[in-house]
Amino acid sequence: LPLNEKSLIARIRSQARPRAGVKAGIGDDCAILQIPAHHEALVTTDFSLEGVHFRREWHLPEVVGHRCLTRGLSDIAAMGGQPIAVFLSLALPRNLPQRWVEGFLKGLLELARAHRVSLAGGDTAESPSGILADIVVVGAAPNGTALRRSSARPGDDIYVTGSLGGAAAALELLFAGRKLRPSDYPQHFHPVPRLAVGQFLRQRNLASAMIDISDGLSTDLSHICEESGVGAEIFADAIPRSVIGKPLHEVDLKFALHGGDDYELLFTAPRKKRIPARIAGVRISEIGRITRGKRIVLVSSLGVKTILKPQGWQHFGPGRREKTKDSGRSS
Amino acid sequence: LPLNEKSLIARIRSQARPRAGVKAGIGDDCAILQIPAHHEALVTTDFSLEGVHFRREWHLPEVVGHRCLTRGLSDIAAMGGQPIAVFLSLALPRNLPQRWVEGFLKGLLELARAHRVSLAGGDTAESPSGILADIVVVGAAPNGTALRRSSARPGDDIYVTGSLGGAAAALELLFAGRKLRPSDYPQHFHPVPRLAVGQFLRQRNLASAMIDISDGLSTDLSHICEESGVGAEIFADAIPRSVIGKPLHEVDLKFALHGGDDYELLFTAPRKKRIPARIAGVRISEIGRITRGKRIVLVSSLGVKTILKPQGWQHFGPGRREKTKDSGRSS
Repeated sequence: LPLNEKSLIARIRSQARPRAGVKAGIGDDCAILQIPAHHEALVTTDFSLEGVHFRREWHLPEVVGHRCLTRGLSDIAAMGGQPIAVFLSLALPRNLPQRWVEGFLKGLLELARAHRVSLAGGDTAESPSGILADIVVVGAAPNGTALRRSSARPGDDIYVTGSLGGAAAALELLFAGRKLRPSDYPQHFHPVPRLAVGQFLRQRNLASAMIDISDGLSTDLSHICEESGVGAEIFADAIPRSVIGKPLHEVDLKFALHGGDDYELLFTAPRKKRIPARIAGVRISEIGRITRGKRIVLVSSLGVKTILKPQGWQHFGPGRREKTKDSGRSS
Repeated sequence: LPLNEKSLIARIRSQARPRAGVKAGIGDDCAILQIPAHHEALVTTDFSLEGVHFRREWHLPEVVGHRCLTRGLSDIAAMGGQPIAVFLSLALPRNLPQRWVEGFLKGLLELARAHRVSLAGGDTAESPSGILADIVVVGAAPNGTALRRSSARPGDDIYVTGSLGGAAAALELLFAGRKLRPSDYPQHFHPVPRLAVGQFLRQRNLASAMIDISDGLSTDLSHICEESGVGAEIFADAIPRSVIGKPLHEVDLKFALHGGDDYELLFTAPRKKRIPARIAGVRISEIGRITRGKRIVLVSSLGVKTILKPQGWQHFGPGRREKTKDSGRSS
């Protein structure tokens, strides 16, 4: 049995020390946040639902807590922002062991501490079915500097951080019934929100548009193209594929193109900008360019061009098998 | 079948026009909000879960949308704040009729428009079971003026807005299998967040502490007392009871003492402050006073004093029957 609600909140409160920017956290009707002068506030919300985004038999509670917060921090990273405070709405089934809750909070709070962000509030409820979490992250960026999806221009180069496909490839193995050691598949079990890279790009005014890769490259690139009213051409050979497992091997191209959950950044930059080969220790790869028109074209290693349709994750899609994948977002 | 996710987001986006304070809403990784200069940001999150906070057979979708947003706006009211933007995380079961979603959004957006606040983002997902909504409201108040729970002082008078118990009394009838006309039970079906009253009290510096009554008077008063390190004495005869139903009748005292969901404001004020009998058209009733010590004492109409324990709603409580009630919150 989880603790009663009052004890649960007291427990969370004792572990969530307020930091700079949080004037009042847990213990009032609202948290009170101080957004720095001449900054705008950034807000994102992301569900993590049992059976949809995670499974208890696949993911330790620490992993669920870590991945839950990564989803929110990665959205702040994609704007080039600095996170300030985290809010957690958590609904728990009555029969959930208290140690699951402890593990979940541990994973979440360790990642929060690593990025100097406070858990400043949320909500608790009894769940009618399964563990339900909604994570809200509030961040900030200097006025007018947050990186949007809508400002890519024809001729801009397209870049990604790190490597792609590692999270989705691990998920396929889990669906096939394989037991995985989390340390062999870090991109799935311990994804890293690219906050330092995002902030570097914003501070130096290097990127024209940015998004995080949570639904898959083909889908997230289509979001940039739609919001910017442009097309794109990307080169299959240039896409950095994740190297995972034991023995180590490179994932198939399909995972790098359509797999979600990697939480890398996808950004565009005017050709005249010099983009470092590494930023904050993370490799940066040029994978294509923004074009006029509306289509996204994939150029194969033999130079064959095909239209690349968004094939990443979408909820409620017709005929999709039920699987544990990250949801798209509306903000 | 609900629309696919992309269509659903496009639909929500078309109905959610950005207003002042929202520089970027739906369509990016984060929303971008402008908090007015010399103001602090207020943030609150509240679940509305099917089977816990509402039932489809009792509540029309418009009512669920209205009540969902009321929970968040009422928390902003309790700080004396001005709401700026709303975020909705919404998970829907695959077999949910699209017209349910339309009705829900209609109820939510009508209340948002009435308070000039934009739906600026959120998340969508497929639900493993039942309709799951989490509402986030971001608001603002001038630096240092937001009304807290922790600043009630011995000798302060205690006040409530409107009347209490109407929502919980209607809920008991629903549990008994009665069909209710929503117009006969407005406090349950169409609760009113007391934003204008909260702002009036903050602007004139009248209140010392404030909370909204979502879990019930006995529980919410105990939150003020615990956070402020004080006790309280309240007079049973002074508690304004709701008058509901057809024919109209006054609710039992137990509903006014322990029933949640009324979304009235409970506040304290130093004795020297003159509190108007009505604020923004809403009746204000003095119901007791803050005392030294830690206990909350109820004084009956015959002058008999008893200890009043918090008996409002708490999730995961031992031996509580399962019922559709509002959850407590941790922020």
